[in-house]
Amino acid sequence: MSKKPRAVVLLSGGLDSTTCCAIALDQGFVLSALTVTYGQRHQIEIDAARMVATHFHITDHVVTNIDLRAFGGSALTSDIAVPKHDDASEIGNEIPVTYVPARNTIFLSFALAFAETRNANAIFIGVNALDYSGYPDCRPEYVSAFQVMANLATKAGIEGAQPLKIHTPLIDHTKAQIIQSGLDLGVDYAMTTSCYDPDATGAACGHCDACLLRLKGFHDAGLTDPATYQASAKFK
Amino acid sequence: MSKKPRAVVLLSGGLDSTTCCAIALDQGFVLSALTVTYGQRHQIEIDAARMVATHFHITDHVVTNIDLRAFGGSALTSDIAVPKHDDASEIGNEIPVTYVPARNTIFLSFALAFAETRNANAIFIGVNALDYSGYPDCRPEYVSAFQVMANLATKAGIEGAQPLKIHTPLIDHTKAQIIQSGLDLGVDYAMTTSCYDPDATGAACGHCDACLLRLKGFHDAGLTDPATYQASAKFK
Repeated sequence: MSKKPRAVVLLSGGLDSTTCCAIALDQGFVLSALTVTYGQRHQIEIDAARMVATHFHITDHVVTNIDLRAFGGSALTSDIAVPKHDDASEIGNEIPVTYVPARNTIFLSFALAFAETRNANAIFIGVNALDYSGYPDCRPEYVSAFQVMANLATKAGIEGAQPLKIHTPLIDHTKAQIIQSGLDLGVDYAMTTSCYDPDATGAACGHCDACLLRLKGFHDAGLTDPATYQASAKFK
Repeated sequence: MSKKPRAVVLLSGGLDSTTCCAIALDQGFVLSALTVTYGQRHQIEIDAARMVATHFHITDHVVTNIDLRAFGGSALTSDIAVPKHDDASEIGNEIPVTYVPARNTIFLSFALAFAETRNANAIFIGVNALDYSGYPDCRPEYVSAFQVMANLATKAGIEGAQPLKIHTPLIDHTKAQIIQSGLDLGVDYAMTTSCYDPDATGAACGHCDACLLRLKGFHDAGLTDPATYQASAKFK
């Protein structure tokens, strides 16, 4: 029996990365999970990530903190207010203030370091080009360019070892399709959190871009989101 | 008079990054300096970086810490011993244990985030392909691939703004040439530190790869290194 391949999965504890874990496990990978916290407002994500890792029996789970507040420039790392809307249709196509400069590049760079120390030739990241809220670092061409760079950056590039592949199983899926894939694989979305601006108990605001895209996804799939929302959240 | 362009420089406080600062300033850039510490053994580097930034009147200097110890896999981030030799000719061509997985990729990713918040279209990094100690992420093809990726990762890639350029002014220079360039620009190398394994006072060991390459550089340039070495350091 051949040994199962190992992959690093970037796990935020959100809906997308949790679905990504389920897909990677279903594809036969043994997972090492990496949660990168970045001085964002929602420390609650870390608890969700730990719960998801435990749920999937991922014992090699590293949580590391980086300080993106030192740079500022985003509503998720500074005092800029998180924009709120009543409906997903109000979300613009321009790059929003919740964009964190070079966030996925930093996340993937850490995943690359982690993968190299674990001899893993695969990295899973739950980026999505459809519901991507206008972030440049969620596009397929960006991910391809990162993969080219990653193979030159590491031992693999010099020693001619197995090349590294960045897996983005959700990249062309709608939020509704992502939710349906996860449910088919037995994911319990009650343990995930997506909100950019939860209250102290972890209840989601229901009005930020992340909440609205998530709620629309469940709505489009004909389902009800099992996450906990604040009383002020409106559902359509 | 046109406004001077802004660049981010990765500043470790070592010989190469300090020379890089001097070159970038000489080329007319206004600098924002970024020092990324990574749980390595030589906290002394940070003091050197601050001294260099002060020397060059760089007021926008961000020092940020990342925890690469969580991954391990390098003599600079774990308990693996730093290799010692008596002469630079003993340094092998294989990737050494002081290689930190994906280090330059992580550093450049942070520099990319920093550059985007500062509207800087240039990043300076003092990588060197000749005296590079066998690190894959010091090669020109790696840097080019990072630049391609970086331009897809950020707002520049979507909005058609000025593309970002990674400047590597030292990439094809010998250590002796780097030192000579720095001296021509008035760099005082007494304020820089290169050792992988300094003592508590900051004195360099004189036997690690970084010390030996530095000492050989000064020797080849017909100069004496003004840095402080431990009594056990031998000079040839």
